[in-house]
Amino acid sequence: MENFEFTAPTRIVFGKESQHDIGALVRPYAGKVLLHYGGKSVKNSGLYQQVVDSLRSAGVEFAELGGVTPNPRLSMVNQGIEICRGENVELVLAVGGGSVIDSAKAIAMGVYYDGDIWDVFDRQLPIDRALPVAAVLTIPAAGSESSFNTVITNEECQRKVGFGSPLLRPVLSVVNPELFFTLPKNQIANGVADMMSHIFERYFTNTTHVELTDGLCEATLKTIMRNAPIVVDDPGNYHAWCEIGFAGTLAHNNLLGVGRVQDWACHGMEHELSAIYDVAHGAGLAVLTPAWIEYVYTENIGMFVQFAVNVMGVCGSFRQPEDIVREGIVRLREFFHKIGLPGTLGELGIDGENLELMAKKTTLVAYGRPERPRGGLKKIYWQDVLAIYNSVR
Amino acid sequence: MENFEFTAPTRIVFGKESQHDIGALVRPYAGKVLLHYGGKSVKNSGLYQQVVDSLRSAGVEFAELGGVTPNPRLSMVNQGIEICRGENVELVLAVGGGSVIDSAKAIAMGVYYDGDIWDVFDRQLPIDRALPVAAVLTIPAAGSESSFNTVITNEECQRKVGFGSPLLRPVLSVVNPELFFTLPKNQIANGVADMMSHIFERYFTNTTHVELTDGLCEATLKTIMRNAPIVVDDPGNYHAWCEIGFAGTLAHNNLLGVGRVQDWACHGMEHELSAIYDVAHGAGLAVLTPAWIEYVYTENIGMFVQFAVNVMGVCGSFRQPEDIVREGIVRLREFFHKIGLPGTLGELGIDGENLELMAKKTTLVAYGRPERPRGGLKKIYWQDVLAIYNSVR
Repeated sequence: MENFEFTAPTRIVFGKESQHDIGALVRPYAGKVLLHYGGKSVKNSGLYQQVVDSLRSAGVEFAELGGVTPNPRLSMVNQGIEICRGENVELVLAVGGGSVIDSAKAIAMGVYYDGDIWDVFDRQLPIDRALPVAAVLTIPAAGSESSFNTVITNEECQRKVGFGSPLLRPVLSVVNPELFFTLPKNQIANGVADMMSHIFERYFTNTTHVELTDGLCEATLKTIMRNAPIVVDDPGNYHAWCEIGFAGTLAHNNLLGVGRVQDWACHGMEHELSAIYDVAHGAGLAVLTPAWIEYVYTENIGMFVQFAVNVMGVCGSFRQPEDIVREGIVRLREFFHKIGLPGTLGELGIDGENLELMAKKTTLVAYGRPERPRGGLKKIYWQDVLAIYNSVR
Repeated sequence: MENFEFTAPTRIVFGKESQHDIGALVRPYAGKVLLHYGGKSVKNSGLYQQVVDSLRSAGVEFAELGGVTPNPRLSMVNQGIEICRGENVELVLAVGGGSVIDSAKAIAMGVYYDGDIWDVFDRQLPIDRALPVAAVLTIPAAGSESSFNTVITNEECQRKVGFGSPLLRPVLSVVNPELFFTLPKNQIANGVADMMSHIFERYFTNTTHVELTDGLCEATLKTIMRNAPIVVDDPGNYHAWCEIGFAGTLAHNNLLGVGRVQDWACHGMEHELSAIYDVAHGAGLAVLTPAWIEYVYTENIGMFVQFAVNVMGVCGSFRQPEDIVREGIVRLREFFHKIGLPGTLGELGIDGENLELMAKKTTLVAYGRPERPRGGLKKIYWQDVLAIYNSVR
């Protein structure tokens, strides 16, 4: 186990009806908030009005900015920064999923940044101040409601870049599984793949003597995989949504990743798909993760046998460990297929045209910079990324 | 799953050499601290001097109060309150195990309480202010380094009473498993039983649809049970201590208990043993927990079959579920015995003399108050407590 620090200061308010308390919950932080949200669904569902009513009854004023899209854009972040500065906003309240929360975080840090906020993403500059962020979650997926990360897409240069700081951890997040009942099946499945990937990126490691966090990862993955088909088939199942909802939050507050070298190659490879093709992050991860395992498993056969046995339930002869791993990969693909996720880049609408470009963007060589290989378990270079892309065309 | 709130704001600084940073870590909170500790071991090991050196090099002044005993006493809490008030202390720094940290928490809230601090414990009065508390942990057991609870013994009336408030959560805790290398075997075993009990008290529930937290409880219990015999046999095993050390912290920050009705009957019954006989809390729990399971399992046979199968690894015919549960109890007792823990009250030096008194104290009838039954899974009254005590005389 490596030395580590852990804290999970976000106040998670979980359960039925909890969105009605959002006004009173944010009041100690702010007299005025930026109400930030995505498209029509939040208005159609009535959630927007519930949040507005709650803010008003708690005496919280608000400015608002709607229209956040999946793979949230830098241009909207800049709009939000201007509003917050102009209206003396004290907290950014995201009502939505990971895209809205990520956009809120970028706005929150941009308000105090004297310059182009994209530079912070591009050059991973330190920040020393941000507005507090709070969230009412509408889809369990990205874990942004408890993480200190944000990922923003610069649409001008087609780049999707992540940034993290403890200052970006939401001060509170409301998670009411009832709000997930109206999600379309494809969004449910994408969210499931995203939260599973947040665990995989931490679970797959060469660090030894991390039994406790291995066990926590495995328990969380198995809970997700048992309950995901239930909510896809029956999106009104509150009990199953509770499991998925809290798993998504836990998957990304980094409890499951403490003390271990993490991987994150799949996220790096996927961001390039989303940046050019605007595909759903989870769908991209569902295609790439099994392909990545296939490409790297010989690096640490014990790790992937453990995955196949402890997570995917594979039995067999440990004298042929590769067979066990391969069966684990088959079962992972079957699981993703079962909940309606794609298995190839072709199904995502991605042809061969930009594969080399995306591979080179993944490790930064496309920008004429020194190559930055990805991955904690196995370092992969642009040729490796290209091979992985090609294996699932 | 029940509605819940979760936050784990304590900054856990985990790993080798971490105690040397304590001065810099507390400096943002305080220019002067109360250095609170137990007996000679912290001086003999050199830890006291390391902490003093770290405080001095960070420019942190300190008053000090040593001599905390297991089952920490109200009289010392009152001493600490006087010192903090007289010396304008801004943070209480506990260097020790659960007893020292619990004592530090009671001092921290007592400083601002205008009256006898025992009243807060006795009558569970709300508090609105406390000094911040930080800890350097010397034994993984009580989980007080991440919990918001404290348990204090009033030696005058032989009562041991717990109290909890979010204000008592340590702002930071340093956990260096190297500091555990010199623990005596009996203290190691007591600590293991204590942390396991913190999980059992949450795990055993009638609340349904708590698969995720069930899985987290089971993973944590299994990790503890795999690694405990290793550290008992080989107390210098850093890797195994890492697992036990982080498990102890996780066992009591309440992640494992969210969304479920918790039990806590065993803790209630054990506190009465410790209050009169000053036995080690963990040793008392090791005696009582299997006896409690035996007494209550018919209340929720499915829960205890799950425990036997998922935690204790029992196989067998589910057509005789009681046999599976009983085998689980046998294995739990065998585990405690293997690491040197007692199996009867007699081994704790407790005869039959005070059993009825302790049973009546457990549910408050001994004080002429209305009976307060214990237990979330099954309500137990003083006669039940007496039956459980008698089953393990």
